[in-house]
Amino acid sequence: MTRPDFEALFERLVRDVPDFPKPGVMFKDITPLLADHDGFAAVVDGLAAAGRDEAGNTVVDAVIGMEARGFILAAPVALALGVGFVPVRKSGKLPSATYSVSYALEYGEATLELHSDALKPGERVLLVDDVLATGGTAAATVQLVELCGATAHGLAVLMELSFLHGRDALDDLDLLALRTL
Amino acid sequence: MTRPDFEALFERLVRDVPDFPKPGVMFKDITPLLADHDGFAAVVDGLAAAGRDEAGNTVVDAVIGMEARGFILAAPVALALGVGFVPVRKSGKLPSATYSVSYALEYGEATLELHSDALKPGERVLLVDDVLATGGTAAATVQLVELCGATAHGLAVLMELSFLHGRDALDDLDLLALRTL
Repeated sequence: MTRPDFEALFERLVRDVPDFPKPGVMFKDITPLLADHDGFAAVVDGLAAAGRDEAGNTVVDAVIGMEARGFILAAPVALALGVGFVPVRKSGKLPSATYSVSYALEYGEATLELHSDALKPGERVLLVDDVLATGGTAAATVQLVELCGATAHGLAVLMELSFLHGRDALDDLDLLALRTL
Repeated sequence: MTRPDFEALFERLVRDVPDFPKPGVMFKDITPLLADHDGFAAVVDGLAAAGRDEAGNTVVDAVIGMEARGFILAAPVALALGVGFVPVRKSGKLPSATYSVSYALEYGEATLELHSDALKPGERVLLVDDVLATGGTAAATVQLVELCGATAHGLAVLMELSFLHGRDALDDLDLLALRTL
């Protein structure tokens, strides 16, 4: 769901950084967008739409942000929707009892955790992150949500890197991407 | 500046987790507070007061959040104040040119980074984090702000662990702590 206004906003405020984090990768740096109040407010409004029905009513019980850049977007989206914020974190960061899911990276694997009492059975949650790349983080987060007995309502991201086919890792999860590259 | 309403809120929604991240430490887990919409909104309002004058006008040009829990609070505070959000991150996470400051931990050291073009000379910034402990993170962040030629207006935190004397590491920086333990 690319919209023209987000396309212009991202052209102006998302910076391409070549060879980060490694040679050959063009990193999409969103920090200039976050530093622009109007731009940041616009993307929060845009992402929050994924948690509302057509009448504008909030249809989710919580918003999940994935560490670390996802926190920056998910927390304001939760406040905008009138629901709580729940962090999914890297291994060893959450202090209480957790569920864990590991997933493959290009080299090795990563583990994400969610407090096992963070969501109640039957709750519907919106996942928010900055970028959908291969979909590994999002798919692991959906698994964590389901371990709590809750349901992933959808995923909202600033940017979908469609050439990495992350959408294929997400089954039929609803995806809102403000910009598709 | 402990206020009775925050004291009651924190008693109800901040969870003590013993022996995390290591034996003998009582960790203050703020995730139940973040998951409570009204509680989260109240602490964002409370922190944002540190960026306003007595007439309610915003007196800072940006809000800095320190990775990772600081992001969850600082991003909504920036939006509430009508200014941009700037992340201070752990070493190697920011893609463009950075300033770096290292500081001592109990064992070893940590390095924090700030994009060198993230703040303009003369700007005033509010630092936001969840907890003021020894003050190492906050003092390093003040140094990063000053390397950009900007000024730290103050630090706003949910909790000050006063027995760790973090305030002593901050010279005369204005500190707003919603709860002092």
